[in-house]
Amino acid sequence: MPSAATTTKTRIFHELDFDQPGKQIGYLRVPQSRDGGAWSTIEVPIAVVNGSKGPAVLFTGGVHGDEYEGQIAVSRLARRLDPQALRGKVILMPAVDLPAALAGRRMCPIDARDFNRCLPGDPAGSFCQMLAHFVDSVLLPQVEISVDVHAAGNAMEAALSSTMHWVQDPSVVQRTKALAENFAAPYNVVFWGVDEGGTMASAAERRGVLAISTELGGYGRVSVEGVRVAERGLDNVLKWMGMIEGKPETSPGTRHMEVRDQKGYVFAPSEGLFEPLHLPGAQVRAGQLAGYLHFIEEWARAPVPVEFRSDGHIWMAPGSGRVKKGDVVGVVMQPYSG
Amino acid sequence: MPSAATTTKTRIFHELDFDQPGKQIGYLRVPQSRDGGAWSTIEVPIAVVNGSKGPAVLFTGGVHGDEYEGQIAVSRLARRLDPQALRGKVILMPAVDLPAALAGRRMCPIDARDFNRCLPGDPAGSFCQMLAHFVDSVLLPQVEISVDVHAAGNAMEAALSSTMHWVQDPSVVQRTKALAENFAAPYNVVFWGVDEGGTMASAAERRGVLAISTELGGYGRVSVEGVRVAERGLDNVLKWMGMIEGKPETSPGTRHMEVRDQKGYVFAPSEGLFEPLHLPGAQVRAGQLAGYLHFIEEWARAPVPVEFRSDGHIWMAPGSGRVKKGDVVGVVMQPYSG
Amino acid sequence: MPSAATTTKTRIFHELDFDQPGKQIGYLRVPQSRDGGAWSTIEVPIAVVNGSKGPAVLFTGGVHGDEYEGQIAVSRLARRLDPQALRGKVILMPAVDLPAALAGRRMCPIDARDFNRCLPGDPAGSFCQMLAHFVDSVLLPQVEISVDVHAAGNAMEAALSSTMHWVQDPSVVQRTKALAENFAAPYNVVFWGVDEGGTMASAAERRGVLAISTELGGYGRVSVEGVRVAERGLDNVLKWMGMIEGKPETSPGTRHMEVRDQKGYVFAPSEGLFEPLHLPGAQVRAGQLAGYLHFIEEWARAPVPVEFRSDGHIWMAPGSGRVKKGDVVGVVMQPYSG
Amino acid sequence: MPSAATTTKTRIFHELDFDQPGKQIGYLRVPQSRDGGAWSTIEVPIAVVNGSKGPAVLFTGGVHGDEYEGQIAVSRLARRLDPQALRGKVILMPAVDLPAALAGRRMCPIDARDFNRCLPGDPAGSFCQMLAHFVDSVLLPQVEISVDVHAAGNAMEAALSSTMHWVQDPSVVQRTKALAENFAAPYNVVFWGVDEGGTMASAAERRGVLAISTELGGYGRVSVEGVRVAERGLDNVLKWMGMIEGKPETSPGTRHMEVRDQKGYVFAPSEGLFEPLHLPGAQVRAGQLAGYLHFIEEWARAPVPVEFRSDGHIWMAPGSGRVKKGDVVGVVMQPYSG
Amino acid sequence: MPSAATTTKTRIFHELDFDQPGKQIGYLRVPQSRDGGAWSTIEVPIAVVNGSKGPAVLFTGGVHGDEYEGQIAVSRLARRLDPQALRGKVILMPAVDLPAALAGRRMCPIDARDFNRCLPGDPAGSFCQMLAHFVDSVLLPQVEISVDVHAAGNAMEAALSSTMHWVQDPSVVQRTKALAENFAAPYNVVFWGVDEGGTMASAAERRGVLAISTELGGYGRVSVEGVRVAERGLDNVLKWMGMIEGKPETSPGTRHMEVRDQKGYVFAPSEGLFEPLHLPGAQVRAGQLAGYLHFIEEWARAPVPVEFRSDGHIWMAPGSGRVKKGDVVGVVMQPYSG
Amino acid sequence: MPSAATTTKTRIFHELDFDQPGKQIGYLRVPQSRDGGAWSTIEVPIAVVNGSKGPAVLFTGGVHGDEYEGQIAVSRLARRLDPQALRGKVILMPAVDLPAALAGRRMCPIDARDFNRCLPGDPAGSFCQMLAHFVDSVLLPQVEISVDVHAAGNAMEAALSSTMHWVQDPSVVQRTKALAENFAAPYNVVFWGVDEGGTMASAAERRGVLAISTELGGYGRVSVEGVRVAERGLDNVLKWMGMIEGKPETSPGTRHMEVRDQKGYVFAPSEGLFEPLHLPGAQVRAGQLAGYLHFIEEWARAPVPVEFRSDGHIWMAPGSGRVKKGDVVGVVMQPYSG
Repeated sequence: MPSAATTTKTRIFHELDFDQPGKQIGYLRVPQSRDGGAWSTIEVPIAVVNGSKGPAVLFTGGVHGDEYEGQIAVSRLARRLDPQALRGKVILMPAVDLPAALAGRRMCPIDARDFNRCLPGDPAGSFCQMLAHFVDSVLLPQVEISVDVHAAGNAMEAALSSTMHWVQDPSVVQRTKALAENFAAPYNVVFWGVDEGGTMASAAERRGVLAISTELGGYGRVSVEGVRVAERGLDNVLKWMGMIEGKPETSPGTRHMEVRDQKGYVFAPSEGLFEPLHLPGAQVRAGQLAGYLHFIEEWARAPVPVEFRSDGHIWMAPGSGRVKKGDVVGVVMQPYSG
Repeated sequence: MPSAATTTKTRIFHELDFDQPGKQIGYLRVPQSRDGGAWSTIEVPIAVVNGSKGPAVLFTGGVHGDEYEGQIAVSRLARRLDPQALRGKVILMPAVDLPAALAGRRMCPIDARDFNRCLPGDPAGSFCQMLAHFVDSVLLPQVEISVDVHAAGNAMEAALSSTMHWVQDPSVVQRTKALAENFAAPYNVVFWGVDEGGTMASAAERRGVLAISTELGGYGRVSVEGVRVAERGLDNVLKWMGMIEGKPETSPGTRHMEVRDQKGYVFAPSEGLFEPLHLPGAQVRAGQLAGYLHFIEEWARAPVPVEFRSDGHIWMAPGSGRVKKGDVVGVVMQPYSG
Repeated sequence: MPSAATTTKTRIFHELDFDQPGKQIGYLRVPQSRDGGAWSTIEVPIAVVNGSKGPAVLFTGGVHGDEYEGQIAVSRLARRLDPQALRGKVILMPAVDLPAALAGRRMCPIDARDFNRCLPGDPAGSFCQMLAHFVDSVLLPQVEISVDVHAAGNAMEAALSSTMHWVQDPSVVQRTKALAENFAAPYNVVFWGVDEGGTMASAAERRGVLAISTELGGYGRVSVEGVRVAERGLDNVLKWMGMIEGKPETSPGTRHMEVRDQKGYVFAPSEGLFEPLHLPGAQVRAGQLAGYLHFIEEWARAPVPVEFRSDGHIWMAPGSGRVKKGDVVGVVMQPYSG
Repeated sequence: MPSAATTTKTRIFHELDFDQPGKQIGYLRVPQSRDGGAWSTIEVPIAVVNGSKGPAVLFTGGVHGDEYEGQIAVSRLARRLDPQALRGKVILMPAVDLPAALAGRRMCPIDARDFNRCLPGDPAGSFCQMLAHFVDSVLLPQVEISVDVHAAGNAMEAALSSTMHWVQDPSVVQRTKALAENFAAPYNVVFWGVDEGGTMASAAERRGVLAISTELGGYGRVSVEGVRVAERGLDNVLKWMGMIEGKPETSPGTRHMEVRDQKGYVFAPSEGLFEPLHLPGAQVRAGQLAGYLHFIEEWARAPVPVEFRSDGHIWMAPGSGRVKKGDVVGVVMQPYSG
Repeated sequence: MPSAATTTKTRIFHELDFDQPGKQIGYLRVPQSRDGGAWSTIEVPIAVVNGSKGPAVLFTGGVHGDEYEGQIAVSRLARRLDPQALRGKVILMPAVDLPAALAGRRMCPIDARDFNRCLPGDPAGSFCQMLAHFVDSVLLPQVEISVDVHAAGNAMEAALSSTMHWVQDPSVVQRTKALAENFAAPYNVVFWGVDEGGTMASAAERRGVLAISTELGGYGRVSVEGVRVAERGLDNVLKWMGMIEGKPETSPGTRHMEVRDQKGYVFAPSEGLFEPLHLPGAQVRAGQLAGYLHFIEEWARAPVPVEFRSDGHIWMAPGSGRVKKGDVVGVVMQPYSG
Repeated sequence: MPSAATTTKTRIFHELDFDQPGKQIGYLRVPQSRDGGAWSTIEVPIAVVNGSKGPAVLFTGGVHGDEYEGQIAVSRLARRLDPQALRGKVILMPAVDLPAALAGRRMCPIDARDFNRCLPGDPAGSFCQMLAHFVDSVLLPQVEISVDVHAAGNAMEAALSSTMHWVQDPSVVQRTKALAENFAAPYNVVFWGVDEGGTMASAAERRGVLAISTELGGYGRVSVEGVRVAERGLDNVLKWMGMIEGKPETSPGTRHMEVRDQKGYVFAPSEGLFEPLHLPGAQVRAGQLAGYLHFIEEWARAPVPVEFRSDGHIWMAPGSGRVKKGDVVGVVMQPYSG
């Protein structure tokens, strides 16, 4: 008899058969007590489409609730995919952190966690931990490729890009770059963020799954172009894998970039109102002004100039006027040196 | 020197001697820092009554704060019990999750947990985890029988019943059924809920303690009849065990029921206002209308009919007009097939 | 140019023509700034059905968000009413305090007000005040009869009843009693509550509109019987007024009751867990125990007995286990003496 | 002796002399009790610069806290303005609703009000009301021109524009258009919003002050181009009025537009995730798709197409993925017909 | 029929007869809807003691909930006063803003108001406004003297003192000084605070009632000495008025002080951690260091020295380490010059 | 590749070299996702000063955010320390739980934890757990002595003291007492609190680091004398260790005290307003009145007298008028018996 506090098996239940031919559209039922909801469950949408024998991929959106392009692209693809015309298996979760997606927030309102810091999860843990454990232990082992569609959310705005981690194995590097080239965002950025160990990408890598994420928008809004890139990208991946008809449309191609080290990151030195001077994609130099930090409430504090610390192009620009000390107000990427 | 983060011993202290003859009425002192309370403790009421040599039982109420019948019945019994007239030991906790009981909420306001998902607990954990560890490791090992008095809380309304889990050992099944028959609620329901591994009942079962829970009210109110059944039931158990004088009053008897599988549960397909068409106890058929889900804010959405998925009698009915997607809006029980 | 802070005209806009024949189903658009919603409006559902020349009535539900029977009955009637078969005009608002209705709360989550204390409202005020002003100055002047369908909400449970205020004019008393008899709830209670000046009923009375309210459920749940009484009652009123075909179904008739003075109210003397000993409708005497107030957290405080202060039948019983000092834990009604 | 509850005089104090030559940079001190702040004041930054005899203008930013371009432009101008080189008087408030500005929110966190719905204010009222009364009764009477720099905030994104209300007096229309042309945003939009009576513009108009507002960004971010337009615009106004040296730089000129009626507004028909198909400035036709409303949590609800209701160019586009029913998800402007 | 929104009569009810001989101890019943409390009332404790014919006084405590000395002194006096030994009438309210008192907060948790800014109140307003109206219109007209016992609350610490406003009429000044001398706190401070129009003292003055307030503690704690001064002071006032036996104990006498103007106040120039260098009562000079404002989170900002702006003795010292910009971090009093 | 959920290495990064000669003043960068802060970090101030070869000490303040004396003393020392004049290494963290320090709260607002219950921490855990792990695994192993400067915070007021735990090894006892005597607070208290396993002191002890904490103020305010004692104490420790010039100033000396067992603690028996009768340092006897618990809201409950349970001097007195059941309202210390 499994105990919530000791179990190693998922407490999530559902009515899907991941190997059954055809399209199944349903929900993961995540048990969640709440005041006014004694035996409640959170229904997290999931679809699995099985065609003829072939490869298996996992497409996810809404890992952060304030990132919308993936929610739209993945759910539309789930409605659109025809199992008759498919080779292999596609698992689709358009809104992984559903409570966050419904709130338009990065953090899960149920357990105040960032889902993308919770992998590989814990079956006895909180909502995100339970769900992360399911994704890691039930879904990732079924697939060869994971595309996790992110954007920069409320806090930042990204030059449209796919992303991959610094990994060791050259063949994995090569295949991941090929995956990114076929996804075909304008940029593909090799990086290691401020706290990457618990992300979808890291979990996929630990499972030997080829993985990219993306940054396809930001400013808290739905990027019209970002949705277009996401939808084309997911189709492209299926085409590249031979799972659906057609050749990937990759024009005008993807530029491989990298963020080599911490110097690429620009942090706000104080809390204030940050005025950026450049847009994503702009070319900048180390020492150049990134912007001014204004203290609008205090005449005695003059605006503080903030500089870039490395040459390159702006990958991430600030998405919100107000920033806190230690917030990222810019990330500079450089041509891939690998 | 035990560390809060690594200790395997309880950090809860108290002045009770569980083996001392007579009645002791006191508190568990659970350390709990808070703003404005540096070295504060939460005092959780507990009583132990030791009579002449005999069996030992644990009676608990208020595991959920919005379930009141057990709080009343267990605390009244603690005041009433006469150690001179008792054979054996009775441990009584009328309000296990005291902060939740004071708030009239299911969830503990201190750590936002459902106590009944926290067993076997963690001595280094949060309030509920610390307390669950105490109940599991200090109290349960002392007793042979556990009766945990629940009701359906704010979210549901139950046909008055005791409950037990699907367990393997036929002799345990028999003895638990006998316990339930002597508790003598109108129904005894064998079931497995949406997330049972961390409950009091599961903890008791893991400890080899004979265990029933109950569902003796709901709608967020105090059920006049539920209090009566709870008080009679606790007395009955003591009588059945020969711990106090008298024979159990079991008239008109208990009907054994079961919830065989997930089909017994009816989930709300969307957020909305759910209008039930039947009361607890009503006989229903699979396919029959359970009720309508109304979207009162939107003329464009017609009310959605929701159906039962199995034949039987209504065990649980919805207790609140507003429901969220994935909430249980009905549970159907069937005659026990065991 | 009207100023928000000085205007005497409503700031609410809509696309209804209250005199146009046929059925119009739409929304009042109440301007409401919020973070993340610069020029937002709250859309409050409203319908107007105009048949052939005849009387005009206003049917409202959801003045309190935790009272569901009216929301269901009024919205279902709006969908069902056939203008071809109607004499006169019916204005229907199924969820007057829409934000409260969506939250299942008594109080409006936008301005923390009780809508039913806001009449006659203020066009320059907060959400409830703006909307109350619209109801009072735009809707009430159009009608001769107002039926405002309430229940006892999360806090109490009512003997199913219509209600009316103590009014002076004997002819108004007579006509209101006739309205109530045709609405045909089991009881009709003449009373004056703890704070009635700002209610729908008072506003209607000031406008010379014949008005009843109702108490058709409580415990926070949807009362199956309450919905039935509400639906029949609204139909009955239309039949009584000759607005639709048929004769009111009033069997088994309405008993006129009254709450004469403050002695009918039983208040909780402290914060605690209140255990009632009787159900709505029960006959009680002054001095009889209404229940016990338990202090579950403190062995040192014995439960406090609480008594009724007048003879009669229980109109309102407590709906929630936890009460605060000064909460009403019972209201006793007596046969109408008028 | 003035009473807080009855006073007609401002309770705000400060150490500025609005007629003293030179630059004074200080604060309005708004009394504000809070827990942990018995005799606290909120210090709202204000500057007055007096040069030689001449006209007087009021420049305001931060009336909404999530609109940053005006906060930057107005505070930078206050630091930069040289009284020696100035003819007339400039009053500058870079962050009118300072608490909102520090929170990056539209609504004031102190009293939950939208400052721009509070004019003409109330000296005995809440923070925004007190401050609105000061602006209306102390500042506006001193000036001939008011420029209130707004952007679209977190909720929307605007085609860069100045705005003016529909006013009656043709000479006021002409002079306001001239003011707008000299401010020289790409568009000048004549409109009447969803709730304009309590705005800065309306207050200025009631005081006979020539007034424009602006919409110079949105998406919750600082618009690099918006800051540029704001800074140039404020300088231009001073030049146009002959208060500082130089000729307004108005190239490439301002296009006068209008929002004629409610049909220009597109409202979200439900709560959901809104996917826009166009960017601000795009040309659209009535009946054309504005976007899709997605219900990402529910496979059973297909995305709902939402259409424009009039021809024109997009003035306002949605700035946030999540919208609520009744939110504005688009405003269409048309060439000025006046 | 009074309307909540238009009434000019109080909506508060109670069972006291203010002219009945003897001691009545009861409650004002203030109607207050809340979620989970439909017809709830807040019971505000009040006592009236009528002895033989004589003067009438009003003693109040708990106008701010984080000021405890008055709550203790006034409630203890109410229990202690013997109507047989009393000449005249004493009205006692130990916890005027009861919800704030129960929360230990300055501001009322129900309506987020400072009760002491709400006089003369509004019968149709919020909790504090309703109650202020009752105090102003029902209680003050009955009495000749008002003593409102305050302390400095969580935010400050006071040199133990009574206080009075700058008033015009020399005879009122003289009599108020005599009242203060008989209350016999170490200091009596003539002042005008940052926002005094809506205070108890101002209301009393408008009603022609002789009024002092006090500052008898602070730091959020109960001042042992403050309670002693409060209890002796209230007794002294009764003795001075000849209402009870005995002569006022005024040793060692009261020193009359004043805060002449805004220069007495020291405001925090930024948000930070304020380190004071002196205790209440200390003698200081203009230009002397009051303390340092530390920015503990930022090595780049050196602590800012903050100076006194006038000579005198410290009346108010900061009571909390963290301060916000605009908070009072010191008030300097000087010998009374009147 | 470390996983957030499984890693055993810290996720905190920084640019300090703990062995580099001279003074480095910087921040620990703790990754922390939040809504509106995608890749944010919390910058926790840290300084390391390396002089010539010698001993190493860790000085910490702000482990609780409402304890200010250590924040001031440690940050001032960091600015003041001259590496040229130093033998050995000093690591200084003036505000360990920085978010709590900025909020003036005991508990961390990010994860609602008491940092001083989190040692030895968890690299995969929440903010406090991550940071506790860094302090325990990176800083403590570098030092021989730890002085963690506390005060009694908002909840209590302490007789100025250093503190140490009951430890077994007599030589550790002797050396810790010597450390305390050189720190030279008026008292040094040997004790074991209500929940000490996860504190800084316990962590230091487990690491073999000589450790004292302090209690140098309370009442939520900055104690002028407490700052003086803290600053002198830290200097003294450096002098005693021969790390800076000079001899410790220890006059008038330290009195060793102890809290032997639970009887030293006085707990509040109910929620209420606690009136203490004595100040810290006062001599008291078992059975003597500590104070009264008042129920200001209820005339029916007389104040409850609360007694001391042991002889001695008051170490801790209550710092806040309002207390909850189970709060410590007094701690009595006795002369050290060791």
